[in-house]
Amino acid sequence: MQIAIVLYPNFTALDAVGPYEILSRLPGAETVFVAEQAGPVLNDQSQLSIVATKTFAEVTRPDIVLVPGGPGQENQMENGALLDWLRAVDATTTWTTSVCTGSLALAAAGLLKGRRATSHWLALEVLAGLGVEATGERVVVDGKYVTAAGVSSGIDMGLTLVGKIAGERAAQTIQLLTEYDPQPPYDAGSPEKAPADIVEYWRANSRHANN
Amino acid sequence: MQIAIVLYPNFTALDAVGPYEILSRLPGAETVFVAEQAGPVLNDQSQLSIVATKTFAEVTRPDIVLVPGGPGQENQMENGALLDWLRAVDATTTWTTSVCTGSLALAAAGLLKGRRATSHWLALEVLAGLGVEATGERVVVDGKYVTAAGVSSGIDMGLTLVGKIAGERAAQTIQLLTEYDPQPPYDAGSPEKAPADIVEYWRANSRHANN
Repeated sequence: MQIAIVLYPNFTALDAVGPYEILSRLPGAETVFVAEQAGPVLNDQSQLSIVATKTFAEVTRPDIVLVPGGPGQENQMENGALLDWLRAVDATTTWTTSVCTGSLALAAAGLLKGRRATSHWLALEVLAGLGVEATGERVVVDGKYVTAAGVSSGIDMGLTLVGKIAGERAAQTIQLLTEYDPQPPYDAGSPEKAPADIVEYWRANSRHANN
Repeated sequence: MQIAIVLYPNFTALDAVGPYEILSRLPGAETVFVAEQAGPVLNDQSQLSIVATKTFAEVTRPDIVLVPGGPGQENQMENGALLDWLRAVDATTTWTTSVCTGSLALAAAGLLKGRRATSHWLALEVLAGLGVEATGERVVVDGKYVTAAGVSSGIDMGLTLVGKIAGERAAQTIQLLTEYDPQPPYDAGSPEKAPADIVEYWRANSRHANN
């Protein structure tokens, strides 16, 4: 089972690495990091590079494709190389997935038309504008399309997918080995829970949110 | 404020990237990935490389140092280059931290002697054997030494540190922007919660746990 994780300049690191750490532990999984060009791809803070080992041309039939989000995603909305590749591989994927604003790229490729999907809470209106039934849920499964909300939600999506692919015990095993027993010291992880003034500030300044 | 995240062959990706995604958003933070040699460093699944942009020699006074865990950590316990560097930078750090089995490297460097600390649940006995008061807690703060349990716990540690460094509102802001509102689809993230037979299997086979 090949899992292709897309990289592009200014992606958000945890969007890719959260679900990677879960999905790559699936029995028989081979994970490849794929980009327009092979080589290091710099993240949204220009501090972290993950190496893309394959080009789009070299990955033609992944079983799972995952598109992370990040500020750089905005440029990807008009990147024919990525959108064409997404449409091509989607024809044979078992699961087509995204984290955070990665769902905007799936939508731009026309893959989420009329489907339910999620995204970073600051991007839900843009997603709805692309003909998608945008929800604020953390993980949305609509057929083979699985989308996760902002950044850290890709971990929950990864475990959801492992459960569907390999069963509950495989998911429990990976949850145990990655010790995913979250105990956030604060309770501000969604716009419903965070202090209202912080939420409002970022709604007004979301282009700088680095989400 | 310079944050140095250590890389070494066979590190676990989420151990490094979870807290990176949180800590790098601290106002004024500069994060560097540091290793014995600069260049791509391959993770424990040999599928993901993060680029080390600095060598140990080039990073002499980080404010925060973070050591991730992973199967490769075992070789690091006898790597004088890393242990000498950890001892040297620890003399001036504000916070010396680890995720997962990274605490074993801090202990091997002599930095946790007699202190309370944590590690991956499968590594707590080894940690105790190094003269550390090993606890199963998810995040342990003992003076300037902050250790996190397995893999995903570095995210909770990152938010804990942000709260201590920049205050509650900074931590809430980063939690909101990374949408860290965990909703694991299973409840098996600790040895107390996972099915007992899965826990027992991995206690008996922990050298293969890829933790």
